[in-house]
Amino acid sequence: MKRITLVMNCPDQKGIIAEVTNFIHNNNGNIVYIDQYVDRVNSIFFMRVECEISEDSQSIEHFKSTFERTIGTQFQLKVEIYLNDEFPKMALFVSKYDHCLYDILARHQSGELAVHIPFILSNHLDLKSIAERFEIPFYHIPITNENKKKAEEKQLQILQEHGVDFIVLARYMQIISGKLIEHFKDKIINIHHSFLPAFPGAKPYHSAYERGVKIIGATSHYVTKELDAGPIIEQNTTHVSHLNSIDDFIAKGRDLERIVLSKALQLHVARKVMVYKNKTIVFS
Amino acid sequence: MKRITLVMNCPDQKGIIAEVTNFIHNNNGNIVYIDQYVDRVNSIFFMRVECEISEDSQSIEHFKSTFERTIGTQFQLKVEIYLNDEFPKMALFVSKYDHCLYDILARHQSGELAVHIPFILSNHLDLKSIAERFEIPFYHIPITNENKKKAEEKQLQILQEHGVDFIVLARYMQIISGKLIEHFKDKIINIHHSFLPAFPGAKPYHSAYERGVKIIGATSHYVTKELDAGPIIEQNTTHVSHLNSIDDFIAKGRDLERIVLSKALQLHVARKVMVYKNKTIVFS
Amino acid sequence: MKRITLVMNCPDQKGIIAEVTNFIHNNNGNIVYIDQYVDRVNSIFFMRVECEISEDSQSIEHFKSTFERTIGTQFQLKVEIYLNDEFPKMALFVSKYDHCLYDILARHQSGELAVHIPFILSNHLDLKSIAERFEIPFYHIPITNENKKKAEEKQLQILQEHGVDFIVLARYMQIISGKLIEHFKDKIINIHHSFLPAFPGAKPYHSAYERGVKIIGATSHYVTKELDAGPIIEQNTTHVSHLNSIDDFIAKGRDLERIVLSKALQLHVARKVMVYKNKTIVFS
Amino acid sequence: MKRITLVMNCPDQKGIIAEVTNFIHNNNGNIVYIDQYVDRVNSIFFMRVECEISEDSQSIEHFKSTFERTIGTQFQLKVEIYLNDEFPKMALFVSKYDHCLYDILARHQSGELAVHIPFILSNHLDLKSIAERFEIPFYHIPITNENKKKAEEKQLQILQEHGVDFIVLARYMQIISGKLIEHFKDKIINIHHSFLPAFPGAKPYHSAYERGVKIIGATSHYVTKELDAGPIIEQNTTHVSHLNSIDDFIAKGRDLERIVLSKALQLHVARKVMVYKNKTIVFS
Repeated sequence: MKRITLVMNCPDQKGIIAEVTNFIHNNNGNIVYIDQYVDRVNSIFFMRVECEISEDSQSIEHFKSTFERTIGTQFQLKVEIYLNDEFPKMALFVSKYDHCLYDILARHQSGELAVHIPFILSNHLDLKSIAERFEIPFYHIPITNENKKKAEEKQLQILQEHGVDFIVLARYMQIISGKLIEHFKDKIINIHHSFLPAFPGAKPYHSAYERGVKIIGATSHYVTKELDAGPIIEQNTTHVSHLNSIDDFIAKGRDLERIVLSKALQLHVARKVMVYKNKTIVFS
Repeated sequence: MKRITLVMNCPDQKGIIAEVTNFIHNNNGNIVYIDQYVDRVNSIFFMRVECEISEDSQSIEHFKSTFERTIGTQFQLKVEIYLNDEFPKMALFVSKYDHCLYDILARHQSGELAVHIPFILSNHLDLKSIAERFEIPFYHIPITNENKKKAEEKQLQILQEHGVDFIVLARYMQIISGKLIEHFKDKIINIHHSFLPAFPGAKPYHSAYERGVKIIGATSHYVTKELDAGPIIEQNTTHVSHLNSIDDFIAKGRDLERIVLSKALQLHVARKVMVYKNKTIVFS
Repeated sequence: MKRITLVMNCPDQKGIIAEVTNFIHNNNGNIVYIDQYVDRVNSIFFMRVECEISEDSQSIEHFKSTFERTIGTQFQLKVEIYLNDEFPKMALFVSKYDHCLYDILARHQSGELAVHIPFILSNHLDLKSIAERFEIPFYHIPITNENKKKAEEKQLQILQEHGVDFIVLARYMQIISGKLIEHFKDKIINIHHSFLPAFPGAKPYHSAYERGVKIIGATSHYVTKELDAGPIIEQNTTHVSHLNSIDDFIAKGRDLERIVLSKALQLHVARKVMVYKNKTIVFS
Repeated sequence: MKRITLVMNCPDQKGIIAEVTNFIHNNNGNIVYIDQYVDRVNSIFFMRVECEISEDSQSIEHFKSTFERTIGTQFQLKVEIYLNDEFPKMALFVSKYDHCLYDILARHQSGELAVHIPFILSNHLDLKSIAERFEIPFYHIPITNENKKKAEEKQLQILQEHGVDFIVLARYMQIISGKLIEHFKDKIINIHHSFLPAFPGAKPYHSAYERGVKIIGATSHYVTKELDAGPIIEQNTTHVSHLNSIDDFIAKGRDLERIVLSKALQLHVARKVMVYKNKTIVFS
């Protein structure tokens, strides 16, 4: 028995759940978990199904092609099917801050984060020793105004060579080019150190301090061409007070960033996040 | 069109979701929301479905009896069906504290809480004026060691006369008799002022203060014969410090009690809570 | 013995704490609680002291004038002295939403909120019956483009007749005039239904829904001439998901608004909030 | 200029704040931060003062001895004085779980945690490679029923050789002997994976799951002879639901344990925690 995850969406229509569950049942699948949502404003139906199918009688490929040929066509249903025990390849982009990197690597080591990490890529050398410590290949691609385009081509080449599935910007302090975003649509996850839409852009902790807020936050989102405006996956906040300096904001924020980013990664890896019209559906 | 909610459970078996969704589809129902859960330890399947059915072609009663006769029997499925626009009747038991009472009445008035409140019942007269202010009948049934049994019979009689569906103990400071609990199994909701299982019984804030905890909590649960040990519906906590006296604990706790109890009531009223083996499944 | 609260600030200088505590000690005062903060960026010293002084030997007035004449002058110290058992007069401004109003009135009744409420004022008649129910005078001052100036003069007149100390805008849906703000500088408390600085102005829940945020918030702040940009007293957030409609945002937000506004009121009433350069120092 | 921290307590008496602040002022100290608390039940006064003193004119030692000889004697004041730039030595005890260890080491590397870590000690070899990766000496002291007493003597010897100031049990799965507890009174910090006093002892996540709680928690406390009953430094909780298996509880709990333990360590290292009668005063 193999466990697979189906993630699908289509225009909302009557009887869709019955049809899909029937199909799985009739193809010897056993539904283990089902989650569904209808966006009533846009009339779109979303569903995520985990089911067990027998490996022998039915290959995943055959299951998928039958699905697509029959009810896929019938309902204009876009579906993706994943084998639960196949780990996706996650590239780690970093710059100089190490707290998110350490957190991700520790979770990866302890088995909390079900991914392969083919490499760490940075525009600086500061975190190279951490990559070595965890025995993960490290690419150093410095970025200047002059070499920016070339550097991005180099990045894309490395990503493709390694067959990377998605990218994490673990406090990577460079703006990602439109080309990379197109290649990895809804597959580049960023952590921004504010509760967006407040304080987008650079130095949000400084702006938060200046405004005298009583909470600070962190936001993990998919990267789109508009800066810090992509679909939000996860957010959280924590209380601050007049006692806290900007440095305190930064220190408290580190804990938020770690928690929010790792939560977003876990949701993405479990195929629980679906993007539609710059918003996310996040199944629990 | 009428909207109805089906809440069901049965031994877990293959194809059950497909069968139920098929049934609804074939009986001209349109599924609006579906939530399902399998307790793998006990092999029990739970499902909650909201669907729209046409009022004309199909009466609710007919729908229900057909459901029970066919797949109900086939899968040993226990089902309850509710009309979403029929408000349940909720009795309010109170003693001397008014904060949960005020909170519930205000939510009721503003339409947040979709129930009828046929009466408020108390063993004291302290809150009678609030009942009058909100124009809700008030029953005063004092309880002493001598009259306890008679008082409870009186309570039961009033509850039955009013056709009460469920009871809220909004800081009602009396232990409920076994007889009442049997009549209202999984239908008496209590708010206990601690994060159970810590600090059951009387004076939990005092015990929490004594222990020097850094969080206090509140727990809403269904009442069972064992004191403060029934199935938990909702819990929450808040931070306290050495600066806080017992009175501060009590004041901070009031906010927790209000929030936790009203959340539990809303979940219960929306038929989102299912009880199994002294635990709850709470759909979101 | 009377308990008094001193709230003071002055340019930061060496030995200031020693001088103030000495003064109190030498004037037969016993310090019960002291909290102090130095804003190092602006070099301003803030202190809040609660102390007991003997009623007989020393009148509050004499204590105050001596304080001001001696160390007040010496350190350019601005001080306010309050008698802890004198309740401030709080005017309640509302429009159509009742949840904050109910919450405040219930807290007031139960003794949680140590204020007098001389009246409720509204530009609509919707909440008049609640005022009557709680036996609090109700002023109805409708506001139109034509009568706006006159209406505000009327408001000011009523506020002064009643000797109001501070104003709460409990979801009052009108912009306050500059004249009123000047008369009640740092004494008008608003609740805004977003985590400012995100979503200022009208319909923040709609904007939050549109943006697809995973948290919503509420902010209580002092009113200044710039809309929703005054010194923040208290903020809080709660999680939302794709399951939540705008109506759900509004319902969840109501709980936040209640909690955040009542917390801000309690801090203000306890003289724990000090304003400096559009930010607050909030002692705990 | 040197910055020092004074932590003191004594029987509560009038004028004590004035005397201490005077003393510091008269000895050329400048108070930077003051926090004070009176336990009114036990009539004990607690204070923490950070101040700058000139290095030349006055040595720390002289300051301390003068303080103790004068107001120390006068008020029966117990005082400890720390140089802020002297890092304490923190021993790390671990067993098999690596998440708290990784978290502490990452915070240490990034400068968040102002301690020296002379060594990591474990009763197992599982985490040896992490110690090596971070270049920290690792002692392996297996513990059996037979060698327990000898093993503890060995531990004590290593602790004393390294001049350790305090010990962190970062999920160390052995009960600490009374002897070690006496040597390090209020200096052994444990992380327990429940919201104490609920679920003390072994397997709290299993017990929490069994009870059907809707929140799980973590507690950091000083170790005393009674298991999981020492003074609590920090606690936190997070929500769980029926969807979460015991493994999910454990995974969610790991984040709590990391956050709660690191917060407790930071408070301890900043000398902000004072213990009195099995409770803590924690300054902010």
